[in-house]
This record gives sequence, C-alpha cells and structure tokens, in this order.
Amino acid sequence: MEWGTKDIRKAFLKSALTEENPFISTDETIKWLAERNEAVHVKVNRVNFDDLNQWKFTPNKGSLVHESGKFFSIDGIRVQTDYGGVSQWEQPIINQPEIGYLGFITKEFNGILYFLAQAKIEPGNVNNVQLSPTLQATKSNYSKVHKGKTPRYLEYFKERSRCAVLLDQLQSEQGARFLRKRNRNIIVHTEEEVSVHEDFVFLTLGQLKKLMQFDNLVNMDTRTVVSGISFGSELAEEEVIKYGASSNGLDYLKSSMLFESSINSIDNIIAWFTELKCLYDLNITKIPLGTVDQWHIEQDQIRHQDHRFFKVIATEVEISNREVARWMQPLVQPEQDGLIAYVAKKINGTLHFAVQAKLESGNFDILEMAPTVQCLTGNYRKTKKGALPFLEYVLNARKDQILIDTIQSEEGGRFYQEQNRNLIVLADDGFSEELPPNYCWMTLNQMQSFLKYNNYLNIQSRSLVSMISFI
Amino acid sequence: MEWGTKDIRKAFLKSALTEENPFISTDETIKWLAERNEAVHVKVNRVNFDDLNQWKFTPNKGSLVHESGKFFSIDGIRVQTDYGGVSQWEQPIINQPEIGYLGFITKEFNGILYFLAQAKIEPGNVNNVQLSPTLQATKSNYSKVHKGKTPRYLEYFKERSRCAVLLDQLQSEQGARFLRKRNRNIIVHTEEEVSVHEDFVFLTLGQLKKLMQFDNLVNMDTRTVVSGISFGSELAEEEVIKYGASSNGLDYLKSSMLFESSINSIDNIIAWFTELKCLYDLNITKIPLGTVDQWHIEQDQIRHQDHRFFKVIATEVEISNREVARWMQPLVQPEQDGLIAYVAKKINGTLHFAVQAKLESGNFDILEMAPTVQCLTGNYRKTKKGALPFLEYVLNARKDQILIDTIQSEEGGRFYQEQNRNLIVLADDGFSEELPPNYCWMTLNQMQSFLKYNNYLNIQSRSLVSMISFI
Repeated sequence: MEWGTKDIRKAFLKSALTEENPFISTDETIKWLAERNEAVHVKVNRVNFDDLNQWKFTPNKGSLVHESGKFFSIDGIRVQTDYGGVSQWEQPIINQPEIGYLGFITKEFNGILYFLAQAKIEPGNVNNVQLSPTLQATKSNYSKVHKGKTPRYLEYFKERSRCAVLLDQLQSEQGARFLRKRNRNIIVHTEEEVSVHEDFVFLTLGQLKKLMQFDNLVNMDTRTVVSGISFGSELAEEEVIKYGASSNGLDYLKSSMLFESSINSIDNIIAWFTELKCLYDLNITKIPLGTVDQWHIEQDQIRHQDHRFFKVIATEVEISNREVARWMQPLVQPEQDGLIAYVAKKINGTLHFAVQAKLESGNFDILEMAPTVQCLTGNYRKTKKGALPFLEYVLNARKDQILIDTIQSEEGGRFYQEQNRNLIVLADDGFSEELPPNYCWMTLNQMQSFLKYNNYLNIQSRSLVSMISFI
Repeated sequence: MEWGTKDIRKAFLKSALTEENPFISTDETIKWLAERNEAVHVKVNRVNFDDLNQWKFTPNKGSLVHESGKFFSIDGIRVQTDYGGVSQWEQPIINQPEIGYLGFITKEFNGILYFLAQAKIEPGNVNNVQLSPTLQATKSNYSKVHKGKTPRYLEYFKERSRCAVLLDQLQSEQGARFLRKRNRNIIVHTEEEVSVHEDFVFLTLGQLKKLMQFDNLVNMDTRTVVSGISFGSELAEEEVIKYGASSNGLDYLKSSMLFESSINSIDNIIAWFTELKCLYDLNITKIPLGTVDQWHIEQDQIRHQDHRFFKVIATEVEISNREVARWMQPLVQPEQDGLIAYVAKKINGTLHFAVQAKLESGNFDILEMAPTVQCLTGNYRKTKKGALPFLEYVLNARKDQILIDTIQSEEGGRFYQEQNRNLIVLADDGFSEELPPNYCWMTLNQMQSFLKYNNYLNIQSRSLVSMISFI
C-alpha cells in the first residue's frame, strides 16, 4: 500500500493534468472506439420469459432468478416511507447481493500514471462499446459460475503482492433500481510489465475526463471509479492550478478544490444529514413479484400499468466480433431518459454545489447525497412546473451558465439503452443562497471527502463529480 | 448551526482542559452522586414471563414484544458468516429499530462551555445512579407511548430555533446484542436561561473525563456522545498542549492528536477496511425465538444451554425516591463481565492504536472498528491461551504501561449489571509493529475522523476514546 508515497501521488496528479500519451492520443482513442463499434455487431432480441434459458420464475412468481441462484434476481418490494409525496408503493427491484469489482490497473511511464481502460461491449449500450475499467466483474463472473474464462487481469487484483492499492472503496449503485447493491471501486498500481490485450489501452486521467465530455464514450463503471480520486490540497501544493477570480466556471471549480472555505463545516453537514436520516423512515418488505401492485408480469416483460418508470425485458443477446457469443438475460429498460444536474454557485469566492439528501428505495442507509436535480424515474419533460425544485432552473440555464452538458449511459450489463443527461449549471447572482431543508451547499472538496466513506454520495452525484476536469 | 464559530470552539476547548466550575467541583460531584445513590432505592425482582405486564410472546414464541408494538422486542436470528471460527449460530437479539436521542445541552459561562449532565437512575446499573446526558430518550419515550411525562429538556432538541447544533451523529450500539441499532448522538448549545432541575448539574468536559477515571460514575450514553468530540489541530492551534518526548504515555496521546504523522493514510485505512468488508459475508435471517438452537425459553429467563453469553430475564422494577415508580420489563444479563482494551504504541514519534476490524451479528455494515481486544461474549479469564490475539498481553501489562484501567457499565436501561473492564495499554518496545490482517494502526486523530461518519467505530472503541483526557 504505497498510496501515500510522494512519487506515485505526483505521477497521479500529472495524469489528471495531461493528455500526453505515447501510446494513443485522445483523438485516436475516439477513432479507435468508433472502429470497435463498427467491427462489432450486437443484437438484442426480445424473447418470452418462458424461453429465457437458465432463468425462471420461482413458484407463484415470487422472483425471477438464474438457475444457479447466482448473478442477480428480480424481486418485488413494498416501500413505506414518510419522505416525499408518496407514502407507500410497490415495485420490482434488482437484487444482486454480491459485491463486484470495478478496478483499474495503473502503471507509471515517464513519471505519469496511466490507467488501463477496456473497450467493453455491453448488450445494453446504445453504441455497443464504451470505455470501462480494466476489470469489471461480479463474483459470479470471477468465480466462473457462467463457466466462461477468468476475466482478464483479475490476478493483478487478487494477488496482492503484484500491486499496491491506491484506492479501494465500497460504493453504492442506483438506489431506485438495485436493492442495497454496492461495488468495490479499486485502483491498483503495478511495476510489473503489463501485456496490453488488443481491447485495452493505457490512458491518462486527463484523457479519461476529456472523453467524458463526449456522449456515451465512457461507461458508468469508469465514472464511479474515477470519482473516488480526490485531489484537494495536493493540487495547490504543486501549484499546478492557479486560483482564478475570472467569471469562468471552471476556475471556480478549481478554486473549490483548493480551499476549505465552505460556508458549511463537515460537522455542520454531518449534523444536517443526521437530522434528515432521523426524520425519515424507509421500510422495505420483500413481496412476491407476481403481487406487486400496479405492475404486470406479461409474457415478455414486467411493466408498470401506465408504462411508467421502467420495464424488465427478457432478451437474447448475440455479440459477433471475431467470434460469436450468445446468451439470454433479463435487462431493465427505462420508460424515458432522465436528467441529473448540479447547480453550483460562487459563495464567498468558492464554488459550492447544492447537494440534495435523497431517499431511494434501494438505499443502504435511508438517504444518500444526490445531485440538485435527479429526475430518472419520471419524465422530466412532463414534470409539472414547480413540482421538482430547480428543474426549470437547470432546463432554462443560459449557455454561458453550463459547465458540463453530456449524455451518459447507465451500466449496459443491466440496463437497456438507458441514457441520462448530465449537467452542471453555474448559478447566476439571482439564485438564492437559501436552500430548501433537504439541500445543503458543499464544496467539491467536501463532496469528495464524503465520497471516501461508503454510502454518502450516490452514483449520480459521483458521475457528475467524475466529469470535472482540471485541464 | 454555529459549530464552526471561533468563540464556541474556544469555549469548548477550554471546557476540555479545565475542571474549573463555579457550580460544582469534581469532588462535590462524586459526593453528590454518592448521596443520590444513598437516597434512592432500586429493587429489581425477577418475575415469570407470564407475569410480565404489557409484554408477551407472539404466537409460537416468535418474539417477545411490548403490547404497544413499541420500545423493543427480543427476536431470534440465525447468523451465517465466514468471519471467525464459527460459521453459523443462532441467538436472541434486541430489536429496537427506533433511533433514540442521546443529547447534551451546553451553555457558556465565563468563556467555558458547560455540559448539562443528569444523575440518572437506571434499573440495570450496579450503583443505581450514573451521570447521563441531558436527554436520553427513545422515540417511544418522547412520543409518550408509555403515557409518562415528556422527558425534561426535550424542547431544546426539538425546537431548533432555541439551540445551535454543535454535533449530531448517528452511532451504533452493541453489535452482539442489538440488531442494527443506532442512536442519535447530539450536542446543542443554547444562549437561553436554562433552569437546572435538581437531578442535573453543569460540568466541564474536563470534569466529565476526570469522572470517567472512576468506576461506574459516567454512563455509556455519556461516553458515546463525548467520544464524538474531536479536537485535532485546534489543540495545537491553542498551544495549550505541548508535544512531549518523555516516556509518559499521556504525552504520546496528546501528540497523537496533534500530528497527522500516521504510518497509514486515511485512504490506506479505507482500503484495508474495504478489502475486509468484501472478504467477509454476514447473513442474518430472522427465526422464531422459540426455535433458536442451543437456547431455552424457561418460565423466567431465556438462556443458553451452557449458561454462556447472556440471558434475557423478566423483571419487576421498583424505584423509590421521593415517589415510587414501578414497571416491568425484560433486561439482558451477561453471563460474565468482559474486557475491552486498546494497545497503543509509539511509532515514528506518534502514538498509534491497534484497531481491530470486527464482525458482530447486529452490525449495520458487516464490520466495525473495535478495540485491540474485545472480549464481552465469552469469559476472558477462561479463554484458552493464544486463542484471542493480544489478550495475554493486556492482562500481563506492567503498571507503568497502563494509561487507563477502569470498570464501566453498559446501558442500564437494557442491560442488568453489565460491567466491563476498560483498558488502554502502552506497548513496550518489544511489541511488534506487524499486526495480523484484521488489525491496523491508527492515530487518535484518525480514529476520530472515522468516528464522524456513521458505523465505523463501534461502541466499545468509542467508550475508550471518550476516556482520553488532556488534563
């Protein structure tokens, strides 16, 4: 464990601040991904649940499960809560109790740390191939329940003598879709030779962040791992970034990393969050999937009566590349695309983000810290005016207020063509510093300090944090 | 929320560093507690479950519950885990899903912060009366399920305009006894006049910590709230404490607060903890209390077949003071007294504590950070030599190695005469810096930074941390 050593930190910091790459430029990476996309054919055919090999409903349609009892199941839950306008509802949810690996191998070349990224095909991706971490594996994957090959590079993560661990965090998944699911976000550093398979490339952190400025090139798993990397005072120490007082939003972003001049202390924020956790109850009861109120199990899908939220579809996946792979699995398809947005405002010279304490049914601990606007389970274009705080504000933001605006995908191994708009909007002077009780101003530095400890920042917050670039 | 303001922090810091008190001295407080103990008569009579008013077993002895469905219940659980030597067991456990308040009101007099402590009678206490926080109330208490009076001073915590919140944290309870129980540890600051009821006194933090050096004067709830107060760099700022290089253990303790010169970074420690959380499974299944393997429900107790661990007893409590109060309730009685101990060692000039990652059945998130030795569920005097790492080391410590050695009580509202020995032992030079995989060296400062975030330091760790005094 050498995270603390100055040399690695320096190599790592440089990685965030450069696109310099002797192996592949950022433009070449984009081309390479496009070629990969061309070269691969992914067919996702809808089938009936009756024909979904190796998957079955338990007696009385209690759950939809894999024959092995592994991977994941689709269960029914009843949710009771005093948070929000609806005090009780029932819904299907993905139950995947295993903790999977989302891991990057990093290696130093010429004093810069490079991240081994994979062009990974996932059946649910809108564009087939996206950049994923080096290793993306559930326990069922790497314990070979599916009788396939051992995932590439797994040994670097399992044999600890081969690598130093730079970061290893438990992080939550989508709370409205997964029941208490968490993944292990891990970055290791090796001094060994690494043989780079043709689906893999070494990229700087700066390149990864640059690629996130494009739609759907970098997958959710990469984004969550990258979000865990904090910089804070080290950026200041290195004096690589100067504190800028210009009106440019990115300068404020940078300033937000450098100075602990938040209007709220960490203790204040913890007190705010504790009070809300004590205020709201979240009771989850498992119920048979077949009895979930307002949801119908049809022969090829499980859907809400009004076609709201999402549906669970049965699919046959065919991926033809050099060879052909075929399998069947359920996928979760959203009924609409969504929007997540942070509103950020310069307060006392430092950029603050309006963080929302949000309850979602699958949360591990009642509330997590969500973006200012998170509209994924309903249609944000049809949301009644004023019903969702700050929604109109971010939708009506002027161009010069927008720091980040891209479309990003959810994990293509579980979600079918799910894309959401990711926005960071700079508030103008008229935006009130007073927030509703469920919201709290935090600097980027503070968000990242919460991110270190598990089950604070939700996956949508982490997706937005990951995109913040320093070059 | 004014925690951050310099004036309060200063008043608060002074409170930790003085026993100066215009109202009551530390000696007078001890006398006052002794008098209170004399004046009160507590009778705890064993009764049969059949005669336990308002409590009943659910059909087929599923659980032992209060008629209102409130307070707590005694449930049965099956525990499956790959941590430790026993892979499966069944046990009774206290299920109390409500989050209660453990709260102190503080007020400034002459630039020093004073904590309003209560001489509280609890039926389980060995000595009847101990110092508790200002407010100690379950939701059933303060929502008046028991039809009693509203707890004193509740309004200071509920009406937020009356107080500034200095600290508000969710903290775990005993993991081997409670199923995922947490309490709200809160400290508020008021500028209002506070009318001090005769059972209450204003004390400095220094006095509270001094009183913890005596056996059974300060209750567990006070200790957990006090443990949440971190000092860190501010003590250094004030230059109240000088870094000392003498062999005196307390000097090292102080140095441990001042300098972030830990051999492990926070990121390293999180990585260590994440890996262990991923390594171990903890599956809890609720089962009927009547079927719990190796446990018998008898007419007046629920006990282990070999009289191990603890028993649940049915009691009639009679407290006579100025008036007489009578009620009935189950209490949990340990089968032996226990021992918790931290081994601390000077490494690179800074004191480090050997923290243990420990799985307990009721843990909210698999593992918590426990003392180096935690022997509560078995008899430490009969533990086989070498079976429990570091047990012999702390039992055989020389007098000059012992920084803290007192007997402290568990919460007397649930536990009957449960006392444990609390030790902090200074390791000698021969003590290896290499620890087994489940242990990690941390400075006091680091332990306190984990303590801020919920479900890291367990209640036994917090009890020991609370006792560390700076005067």
